[in-house]
Amino acid sequence: MVYVTRRVSFSSAHHLRNDGYDEEENKRIFGKCANTHGHNYELEVTLKGEIDHSTGYVFDLKVLKDILKREFVDIADHASLNDVPALKGLNPTAENVVVAVWRLIEGKMGNAKLHSVKLYETVNNIAEYRGE
Amino acid sequence: MVYVTRRVSFSSAHHLRNDGYDEEENKRIFGKCANTHGHNYELEVTLKGEIDHSTGYVFDLKVLKDILKREFVDIADHASLNDVPALKGLNPTAENVVVAVWRLIEGKMGNAKLHSVKLYETVNNIAEYRGE
Amino acid sequence: MVYVTRRVSFSSAHHLRNDGYDEEENKRIFGKCANTHGHNYELEVTLKGEIDHSTGYVFDLKVLKDILKREFVDIADHASLNDVPALKGLNPTAENVVVAVWRLIEGKMGNAKLHSVKLYETVNNIAEYRGE
Amino acid sequence: MVYVTRRVSFSSAHHLRNDGYDEEENKRIFGKCANTHGHNYELEVTLKGEIDHSTGYVFDLKVLKDILKREFVDIADHASLNDVPALKGLNPTAENVVVAVWRLIEGKMGNAKLHSVKLYETVNNIAEYRGE
Amino acid sequence: MVYVTRRVSFSSAHHLRNDGYDEEENKRIFGKCANTHGHNYELEVTLKGEIDHSTGYVFDLKVLKDILKREFVDIADHASLNDVPALKGLNPTAENVVVAVWRLIEGKMGNAKLHSVKLYETVNNIAEYRGE
Amino acid sequence: MVYVTRRVSFSSAHHLRNDGYDEEENKRIFGKCANTHGHNYELEVTLKGEIDHSTGYVFDLKVLKDILKREFVDIADHASLNDVPALKGLNPTAENVVVAVWRLIEGKMGNAKLHSVKLYETVNNIAEYRGE
Repeated sequence: MVYVTRRVSFSSAHHLRNDGYDEEENKRIFGKCANTHGHNYELEVTLKGEIDHSTGYVFDLKVLKDILKREFVDIADHASLNDVPALKGLNPTAENVVVAVWRLIEGKMGNAKLHSVKLYETVNNIAEYRGE
Repeated sequence: MVYVTRRVSFSSAHHLRNDGYDEEENKRIFGKCANTHGHNYELEVTLKGEIDHSTGYVFDLKVLKDILKREFVDIADHASLNDVPALKGLNPTAENVVVAVWRLIEGKMGNAKLHSVKLYETVNNIAEYRGE
Repeated sequence: MVYVTRRVSFSSAHHLRNDGYDEEENKRIFGKCANTHGHNYELEVTLKGEIDHSTGYVFDLKVLKDILKREFVDIADHASLNDVPALKGLNPTAENVVVAVWRLIEGKMGNAKLHSVKLYETVNNIAEYRGE
Repeated sequence: MVYVTRRVSFSSAHHLRNDGYDEEENKRIFGKCANTHGHNYELEVTLKGEIDHSTGYVFDLKVLKDILKREFVDIADHASLNDVPALKGLNPTAENVVVAVWRLIEGKMGNAKLHSVKLYETVNNIAEYRGE
Repeated sequence: MVYVTRRVSFSSAHHLRNDGYDEEENKRIFGKCANTHGHNYELEVTLKGEIDHSTGYVFDLKVLKDILKREFVDIADHASLNDVPALKGLNPTAENVVVAVWRLIEGKMGNAKLHSVKLYETVNNIAEYRGE
Repeated sequence: MVYVTRRVSFSSAHHLRNDGYDEEENKRIFGKCANTHGHNYELEVTLKGEIDHSTGYVFDLKVLKDILKREFVDIADHASLNDVPALKGLNPTAENVVVAVWRLIEGKMGNAKLHSVKLYETVNNIAEYRGE
């Protein structure tokens, strides 16, 4: 059982907001994150599986990259996360993004099992979902 | 003569657009950058001067950090560069940001001379102004 | 269940020493680490919890940053780890620091559960404690 | 129980190939990886154990570095992974390297237990083996 | 006058050798670099020019990326630098690569002037050519 | 004319102090830097010269590394900069270190000319001396 990880980058805008709160409450809870701003996000997706002895691969990471681009990155990159369909009705926090990406790609990696979806919003703020 | 550099970070949204162009022309020239998106920007400001022998400093970098925050970073961070007053009427490209930051801080560093303002939009895209 | 991580930095001195050993033995076991030297440390603290659907957060990472600063970083930064009260009687190795930080902050994160305290002494030397 | 990690670097060539495939099939499956190329690899090895209270160490990371160099890095660095004895008969993918390194060093760390061998082929492509 | 820089990555093999030297002499001068090995190279190309006020660009960095890929990176990536036509007859040191890349791209950036070609072989070994 | 750079790391303690000032004045000017603390320093030394066509080198960077280690790094690493002979009588700021390193190594690189000594105290605080 070996874990393989592919990292991809995207640059998006977002703002955090709960429509059930008034302006003041949004400012109090989300601070400057209530303003439209943005990040260079780094997304790391980890699969777990047996090594295929004819290739030496658990899963072809170029294929994983293509899946990530098709399902999420090409939609979210150079766009606002608040407009991404997979995040509809959700505050686009790093926490909600990792769960959404998990749901978009789960079951699309053949025999390899999805193990973790990790998102660096900055080098200091990180979220990870392991399907638990 | 020694060069000293202070790096500061900020996370902002922006979109690139020329209001004199129609939608199609904006898309053709700016591509996905015409959409609202964002970055974790890294700003590096370099001063040049003699070492003050009573301190060993060319310029106190904590003071430089405070100047950068007051003049630009606290305004641009967690906001849209398209709304920053110092960039009014300018497309908020990395090129225009470095010139704007230069103008905001020039002449505020005592005996030290401003040498360079450098901006990393991502690790791959960088602009620098040296007052030339 | 989502994991969220906050990274904070501090710059400290330390030296490694067992007072029960003589000088030669300290040098033999700790090598150059027996001399006072220092590092730019990176501390990563990970919490585990359910996403709060009104905010999209597991735990507000600005609050986690404030806890880390108040409990440890503001005391250890620009100081010697050998003088930090939470490390009293302990050799200030990365291993002892991560256990000490865990004990300082455990139980202070509301519904979120402390999952991991990880310390990068350099990019090459790392310790992590998971409360096991 | 604390985890300690040592990172080491090496620069090697490799190419991916299955001798049972013809040229075209190798190109189809391995793409440009079928050509001889190379990487600056980063290897991270993690041990798990109790802190020794006389030293504050789980395991002396300088000793771990020496083991890694002797068993693998000094052989693989500035060489081709296709020629490394421990990878004989295996395609030198990141997956096969982490399993091979695990087998080379397992049981050589005294009371500390080998927990993970992780290899960054680039910042974007990563494999990890945990002995499962 | 503003400087703009585009960074691109490629992973290549190389070995250093002077065919006029015998084996022993090659080993003595080039050490382990005489063996086929490889690197994740980072190439940074800097242009210098006036900001075009209709776009805010000195030069469209996506176009610069395309030029770099077409002229050098798509040929050198996942290949051996010893086989790259632009390096024919030259030892593929970082020094020779930066001069070769300069010659391949000079004069292809419209009104912008080529200022610097910089190559990171590793984070520790760097060469730069400024056309002097 | 090509520039070549070698980066080396060292981990040292230091504190900033002017013995002509009283305690309060030292605290006021140097803040927390008046306490003994430390850093993982990155030192980048750049030489400038013609490429030697028999080797493809401007200067063998392994030799430059050896000079840097012998003249400065082996003395400063895992020690206090306040005790380093080359910094005697100087406040061990990044500014004073780069000038001291320049003086230690100047004239020791054969035909290559010393161009720059640059020191990263942290990723945010940097000093550089170019012999001007």
